[in-house]
Amino acid sequence: MKMAASLLTVAAVFLVFCSGAVGFPTGQAPRSSLGCGYKSCPATQPGMLNVHLVPHTHDDVGWLKTVDQYYYGGRNNIQHAGVQFILDSVVDQLQKNPARRFIYVETAFFIRWWSQQDAITQKVVTELVNEGRLEFINGGWCMSDEATTHYSAVIDQMTLGLRFLNDTFGECGRPRVAWHIDPFGHAREHASMFAQMGYDGFFFGRLDYQDKRRRMNEKDMEMIWRASESLAPPTADLFTGVLPNGYNPPDGFCWDQSCSDAPIQDDPSLEDYNVDTIVTNFLKVANDQATIYRTNHIIMTMGSDFQYENANLWYKNLDKLIRYVNAKQSQGSKVNVLYSTPSCYLQELHRANLTWVSGSPSLLVSVYMAMARWSVCVCVIASQYPLLLLSTPSVKTDDFFPYADDAHDFWTGYFTSRPALKRYERISNSLLQVCNQLEVLGGPSSKKGPHGDGDSETLRKAMAVAQHHDAVSGTEKQHVADDYAKRLATGCAHCQVLVSNALSKLSGSGAPRVYCENLNISVCPLTESSHKVRYRVTRSIINADLRIHGNSAEFSVTVYNPLSRSVSWAVRLPVNGSRYSVTDPSGRLVDSQVIPVSQSTQDIRRDRGYARNELLFQAQAPPLGFRTYSVSLLPNRPLRASPQLGTPLYLQNKFLKVTFDPETGLLSSLTNMETKQTMQLKQNFYWSNSVVQEVWQQFGPWASQVVRLYQDSRELELEWTVGPVPVKDGHGKEVITRLETSINSSGLFYTDSNGREVLERRECSHEADRRPGGGMRDFRPTWDLKQTEPIAGNYYPINSRMYIKDKEQQLTVVTDRSQGGSSILDGSLEIMLHRRLLVDDYRGVGEALSEPGEYGEGLVVRGRLLLALTPPAAAADTHRPLAESLVLQPLISLQDGDLHPNTLLEFSGLQAALPPAVHLLTLSQWDRDSVLLRLEHQFQAKESQSHSQPVTVNLQKLFSTLDVVGVSEMSLAANQWKDKMTRMEWKGNTGEKPLRQESAEPSPWEVTLKPMEIRTFLLRVLQR
Amino acid sequence: MKMAASLLTVAAVFLVFCSGAVGFPTGQAPRSSLGCGYKSCPATQPGMLNVHLVPHTHDDVGWLKTVDQYYYGGRNNIQHAGVQFILDSVVDQLQKNPARRFIYVETAFFIRWWSQQDAITQKVVTELVNEGRLEFINGGWCMSDEATTHYSAVIDQMTLGLRFLNDTFGECGRPRVAWHIDPFGHAREHASMFAQMGYDGFFFGRLDYQDKRRRMNEKDMEMIWRASESLAPPTADLFTGVLPNGYNPPDGFCWDQSCSDAPIQDDPSLEDYNVDTIVTNFLKVANDQATIYRTNHIIMTMGSDFQYENANLWYKNLDKLIRYVNAKQSQGSKVNVLYSTPSCYLQELHRANLTWVSGSPSLLVSVYMAMARWSVCVCVIASQYPLLLLSTPSVKTDDFFPYADDAHDFWTGYFTSRPALKRYERISNSLLQVCNQLEVLGGPSSKKGPHGDGDSETLRKAMAVAQHHDAVSGTEKQHVADDYAKRLATGCAHCQVLVSNALSKLSGSGAPRVYCENLNISVCPLTESSHKVRYRVTRSIINADLRIHGNSAEFSVTVYNPLSRSVSWAVRLPVNGSRYSVTDPSGRLVDSQVIPVSQSTQDIRRDRGYARNELLFQAQAPPLGFRTYSVSLLPNRPLRASPQLGTPLYLQNKFLKVTFDPETGLLSSLTNMETKQTMQLKQNFYWSNSVVQEVWQQFGPWASQVVRLYQDSRELELEWTVGPVPVKDGHGKEVITRLETSINSSGLFYTDSNGREVLERRECSHEADRRPGGGMRDFRPTWDLKQTEPIAGNYYPINSRMYIKDKEQQLTVVTDRSQGGSSILDGSLEIMLHRRLLVDDYRGVGEALSEPGEYGEGLVVRGRLLLALTPPAAAADTHRPLAESLVLQPLISLQDGDLHPNTLLEFSGLQAALPPAVHLLTLSQWDRDSVLLRLEHQFQAKESQSHSQPVTVNLQKLFSTLDVVGVSEMSLAANQWKDKMTRMEWKGNTGEKPLRQESAEPSPWEVTLKPMEIRTFLLRVLQR
Repeated sequence: MKMAASLLTVAAVFLVFCSGAVGFPTGQAPRSSLGCGYKSCPATQPGMLNVHLVPHTHDDVGWLKTVDQYYYGGRNNIQHAGVQFILDSVVDQLQKNPARRFIYVETAFFIRWWSQQDAITQKVVTELVNEGRLEFINGGWCMSDEATTHYSAVIDQMTLGLRFLNDTFGECGRPRVAWHIDPFGHAREHASMFAQMGYDGFFFGRLDYQDKRRRMNEKDMEMIWRASESLAPPTADLFTGVLPNGYNPPDGFCWDQSCSDAPIQDDPSLEDYNVDTIVTNFLKVANDQATIYRTNHIIMTMGSDFQYENANLWYKNLDKLIRYVNAKQSQGSKVNVLYSTPSCYLQELHRANLTWVSGSPSLLVSVYMAMARWSVCVCVIASQYPLLLLSTPSVKTDDFFPYADDAHDFWTGYFTSRPALKRYERISNSLLQVCNQLEVLGGPSSKKGPHGDGDSETLRKAMAVAQHHDAVSGTEKQHVADDYAKRLATGCAHCQVLVSNALSKLSGSGAPRVYCENLNISVCPLTESSHKVRYRVTRSIINADLRIHGNSAEFSVTVYNPLSRSVSWAVRLPVNGSRYSVTDPSGRLVDSQVIPVSQSTQDIRRDRGYARNELLFQAQAPPLGFRTYSVSLLPNRPLRASPQLGTPLYLQNKFLKVTFDPETGLLSSLTNMETKQTMQLKQNFYWSNSVVQEVWQQFGPWASQVVRLYQDSRELELEWTVGPVPVKDGHGKEVITRLETSINSSGLFYTDSNGREVLERRECSHEADRRPGGGMRDFRPTWDLKQTEPIAGNYYPINSRMYIKDKEQQLTVVTDRSQGGSSILDGSLEIMLHRRLLVDDYRGVGEALSEPGEYGEGLVVRGRLLLALTPPAAAADTHRPLAESLVLQPLISLQDGDLHPNTLLEFSGLQAALPPAVHLLTLSQWDRDSVLLRLEHQFQAKESQSHSQPVTVNLQKLFSTLDVVGVSEMSLAANQWKDKMTRMEWKGNTGEKPLRQESAEPSPWEVTLKPMEIRTFLLRVLQR
Repeated sequence: MKMAASLLTVAAVFLVFCSGAVGFPTGQAPRSSLGCGYKSCPATQPGMLNVHLVPHTHDDVGWLKTVDQYYYGGRNNIQHAGVQFILDSVVDQLQKNPARRFIYVETAFFIRWWSQQDAITQKVVTELVNEGRLEFINGGWCMSDEATTHYSAVIDQMTLGLRFLNDTFGECGRPRVAWHIDPFGHAREHASMFAQMGYDGFFFGRLDYQDKRRRMNEKDMEMIWRASESLAPPTADLFTGVLPNGYNPPDGFCWDQSCSDAPIQDDPSLEDYNVDTIVTNFLKVANDQATIYRTNHIIMTMGSDFQYENANLWYKNLDKLIRYVNAKQSQGSKVNVLYSTPSCYLQELHRANLTWVSGSPSLLVSVYMAMARWSVCVCVIASQYPLLLLSTPSVKTDDFFPYADDAHDFWTGYFTSRPALKRYERISNSLLQVCNQLEVLGGPSSKKGPHGDGDSETLRKAMAVAQHHDAVSGTEKQHVADDYAKRLATGCAHCQVLVSNALSKLSGSGAPRVYCENLNISVCPLTESSHKVRYRVTRSIINADLRIHGNSAEFSVTVYNPLSRSVSWAVRLPVNGSRYSVTDPSGRLVDSQVIPVSQSTQDIRRDRGYARNELLFQAQAPPLGFRTYSVSLLPNRPLRASPQLGTPLYLQNKFLKVTFDPETGLLSSLTNMETKQTMQLKQNFYWSNSVVQEVWQQFGPWASQVVRLYQDSRELELEWTVGPVPVKDGHGKEVITRLETSINSSGLFYTDSNGREVLERRECSHEADRRPGGGMRDFRPTWDLKQTEPIAGNYYPINSRMYIKDKEQQLTVVTDRSQGGSSILDGSLEIMLHRRLLVDDYRGVGEALSEPGEYGEGLVVRGRLLLALTPPAAAADTHRPLAESLVLQPLISLQDGDLHPNTLLEFSGLQAALPPAVHLLTLSQWDRDSVLLRLEHQFQAKESQSHSQPVTVNLQKLFSTLDVVGVSEMSLAANQWKDKMTRMEWKGNTGEKPLRQESAEPSPWEVTLKPMEIRTFLLRVLQR
């Protein structure tokens, strides 16, 4: 049934979806009438303090062990943990007492276990879920890191996990609560995403210890988090609660096999009878906890890392605890303990109907008093202006970075840890999006085609695993980091087959396709092959000892662009010839250069490659499509001098001019040729001893940089190479690059949150004290430690960009991966590039972060920073598309020899480029006849005069090869119909009436996006 | 129905028992038709190597934690272990797969768990037992120690455990196999008892490492143990197997939560898939193990200490192991793996129908070769004559002491460890037997009478727990040792109430009764009370500062004798008067003395008592009865000199004369006045540094001794006092006393096994090399370590006696507790009395054995050694009754003031004393109308000319207050009717035809006992 010109309403289309073959949700609708979700919550006692015991396990999707080892319980000598047994045991134990509850969080593990169960067990589990006894919480593939992840990968991993739950359990499997109990600080964008995914609330465990102290004192542990400055409330509002004990049980009440607290020994005839002691202790703990929360409900997380492997220990004791504590009610006790879940606790908070303004009448005084004790960074954590803080204490608008668990223990190094893994994860995400798109555009033969069987699933899962808070974060053991990388590599290989098949289908050329993944170190066997160097090339023998192979000196380069607009991309290919012709699909010769491979690159790549030169040309690629260029070797001619071989006085194109200090060779200024803005710019590299933070030194020859200015680019490219970081001096090192400018930044700088919205950061160290003015100065502490903390304590995560500005100028740095950065000195901007340590940080990982690299000497890392100098008002117009193009970069594939004449050399999957404000965030196959589409307005409100406006896209006019015959809008994670999505409404303290966005769109196909809005659609499509 | 003069046969009486109210067994007979026991064993593959996997847990009834802590899982910081969870988990897991098996051993734990289960779980467990899926093995209250226990307490604890199993599960709950996998060496008497209890086989884990090596080489790991030199085979023959890996799984196959071996990871899509590796490794392990055993069946113990707390881990992996290993059979593998139990394995060994002679044709050569490598003590372990060894390699006739797990690691110190606990356990046993007897003789009012509620159960259980191999052995942590003592103390208190009630019933006097438990340090508040010293007495103020209280200076002393013959007993009571009259029941004055309390005793007791003097008189008590003496204070008169105040030249009575060296004051000779035998005797105390064993020194003032010769005694009493052992010199110490005599002992000495039969021991150290002659000399090794090992390696357990002899003389030392002893020098005999160490022995306990004592300075211990000098042929006539009277000693109770004139002052529960050869081992209430009686022939065959003969007792003429109306003979542990008891018959290698003892007794009431025989009866009795 073709519905391209249907007159049906969206609702009608929706019905087709529900009843038809598209299969979403898979017939689970009736389950919502079961007793799961809020309906399954246990009764509470209105006149009592209700203690919600939440049995839970925290199962890292890799940390000290790999995800496989954690699942099976392998390598228990490293850490005793086996998830298969946890689920076995919990399911057994839940059946023994209907009052018992359990929550499960990480779908990556659950799905493995589920697939190994027989039908009887699956039925039992389904019943437990339907009765709310086993409840899924959070429900993503993993519990993602918040500091080092990119929003697109987070949305993907959440979608993957939630889809399994939805497909398997329907409405009863849909998590109501987001649960990030372990991540090391919390990003505002995560809260925004959770809100848009339909979660009613969010709980976490880790926040700055001083922030927590203040919140405990002020009964401000639970709040509304307004997580977007662009989206209209309550779209990105999220009820957020700080858990009382991280995610652990109160002291003395840990009854897991991994704990040693006394069990409840209730046989009075035995020596160690302890019921009275335990009940007394518990009542004290509960009453103490009640003093820091606002309602007569409190939550206790009864579990921890990989607990409940033998759930009987926990439940048997919890059964007794509940029995004996509640028995005291007959003697007048006003404490009521019950098995519960985070959602049941949340429901009680909601029922309390508070406005979530601190109830303390002495708020003003106590806040000031608390401030007097606060550390250097409370200014950032709380808010930037004291008056704002006081008027809205329970509405959180900034984020929870950086996280310190003690005065000297800031968790900011991991923003940069394992920079190579962080980059590989980012590249893999780009490939996954390409893979997803081409699975749609290439049709069924993408997965089974001339190049074999390919799939996107493997990489999707590998990427989902890599979002875990001990994965891309870099906080895992080395062997686990290697495992993540291996999984990504396997996933990439599967995707490459799919991409080859799809490109084969779309281009008509089935010739083998090669993907060179080491172009950043000038290695690509295909392009090198005809001029292979036998031995390692050194400068002195650069023209000697070559060995020419007889292969054809012709190959083609296909550039696939996953963005919804055309891109221009500098293609750099390692070659051994010195002259090539490059032609575009229309046969036109394209400008190209051949330049020598730098000595630095040769040193890094060792015998992995032999190219002497790089062929460089600027490729253009159409939206969601490809363009193929042909390359032919020409007779030799002498190379022209490379820009690396000497430092010129300046580089210049029509957009930018950069000058260098003739004495040092370092950057000295940057000029925007269009706006005529010039900024003084000094850059250098430094390392900090990772133990004594304040010792800074200029460093030696194990770091280098190439400064590039491409002809048609508005940005300056700094390609940095760092490593192996020397440690023979006995010092671990954290390597940063610092840009010092003439911008008057006044202690403020800006970093993005998960690659989307930007937050203002305030540098608040001892340096600030010497700076005249600044509203927060009076509240800064004067403690002894201030000279050691300001560095780490002022670092923030950068996922895509960071900038400083004054009224006239803004310097934006766009990064190619997640890193940590700060602005310690006014006008400066620094980014940590690499780190290598010699001691463990005593946070559990049990080994120093010292990546050995392929040769064991220490890992060498290469990356790029893109610098843009603009007026502040125009900055977003540059950095939004720039960051977008770095996140979703073109995929280059190579084919050897001549292409068949019938080959299609250019293709676009879109009928036309989308408007500049619109980003095609997701296009991936959902079911046989349906695809998932996410469109995003990539500008914040007010940041761009031209683009921060609503923009409309017509879904039927989107694709060039697909007819869209049905559309249904979904929640952000695609596990709910948007129009069925309801969230708890919370009374904020601002007096704003929560607004529902009313759809005023003239047609179901016309989709309007407001700034920072992401809209998710399930499209029913037909291949044309 | 009175049956005293019944004409019914024993069989008829038996029928009455079965159907009547006596209630044994409690209607469980039909269960034997269920599929439990051998019938439930899994099928095996005749043409293959069958690997019997035995899932098991080893649950110490106290060790690093107390029995309560182990049960509940308390103090898991010491050791992670919680038995309640083990049983929870195993029962759950057994239900998941009918092929799974589990054995459970320690009834002390099982009974607690059982009592906490609901009816549904009890039913499930009963079904598992009835189907043989859960099988009880061993089944005593605990797994008793073998080196430091007394047979009477072992029989009691086995009876207690097995009775619960019988009452609860009937025939299906009866263990077929004895299982002592952990005790540190194995006593022959234990094997004898197990045989008499009806076990078909016995498996253990620990034996001398060289013995094990030899047995592995010779395929002699499984054997017949002929465990008695007196009992006719096969009465005490026991099939005995040495387990391959102690009681652990093979390396690499431990899948408990406490292990770190790789689980079977059988998802081929995961990184760590390892099925092939594991199967290959397992096949290698199995085939290797098969080379050291004789049949095509091998056993693997899949478990260890407190394992299976989360049984899922084990079973899930074992399920897979079985599946994947057996799957190899389709590719030709000849290995068949199965879940099994020790009894099922035993059944297969039995079916193999071998004669259990080593099958190796090269036996002679290999034994000689092996001997060349053996250590100093193999001579003892193997046998004393090489020819004997070679002719009967598979019939074991000696025992498995001492146990060494490595060249330097002999487990012999524990024979003496915690000497105070060892003595307290022995006294408690004596009280328990008194308590048992008086519960029978005193009738129902014993348990509920004028003195309150008393019971024997508490002490019975405390004693049963104390038999555990980390209890009386002294190998537990200090706090656990304290707990055992506390349990015994509680049990004793319960028994004292029972005893008071019973004596009240029997004597007619309900006056309060006092038990003075500290008479050994001259403390007894009642007898001291009328002359209480206000402050601590020092010698200088002994006649000053006294405070006389107005209490009556009259009290009575009741001496209850638990033996079946009259005894004479020296009563010593602390008093403050200096003259007393003591009268017997007929009013006759009894000789008494008042002597000063020694300074040594005053120093030890500190302020626990204030008596200046001791009143001493010799009391007589009738068989199984009491006699009451009245004591009155007389006017003061000067004390006569005490024997302690100066060392006389000799002590002499009509039986013995002992002389002292006038210069040193040490013993110099001992003369038996009846036989006119005189032996040179030198005694001293020594300590060995417990690290460097060969350094011996005479020691200082922290040890003393009192030598006593009582008027009517044939033995010399040495009361030793040792401690606090000083350790400020940085050396732990093991304190011994050594008696050096003129006896020509020729390297031989003799020690008892668990207080019954005596084994010959051969000293085989470097000293022996310097001694001319000696058959083993040629086979002794010449390794470097011989100068350090001979001490520890020559120590053997002494439970009741040790002796040396030559053709004319035998010096026997009877001990009051279990100790370690040896004869390192010819003619000498040494006993370790006390030990205090400064370092842990690295065998798991994790603390040095350094008992602090009440004042923290180190424990002071006091004890007695009784010396008898006799001709060898007459020695048993002395030491058998002597040891008996020390094990079951009279219980002294005191009553203040005058007794009522109607009080019965003398009573015997027997119609007449039993013949000298007969020991009344057990008399205890079984059910309301039945009592358990054990009669024992206490002489070995041939050891006594007068007593080593059959002796007959008439059960109906036994008791003075009970009519015996029915009798049924039972197995030794009273869990089977004797005439229903069948045991597997094994083909020994001696060609002897196993003989069944035919009952030729003329009447069921006439019971004949042969040497060393114990016969167990359930009697139906009526109180007269």
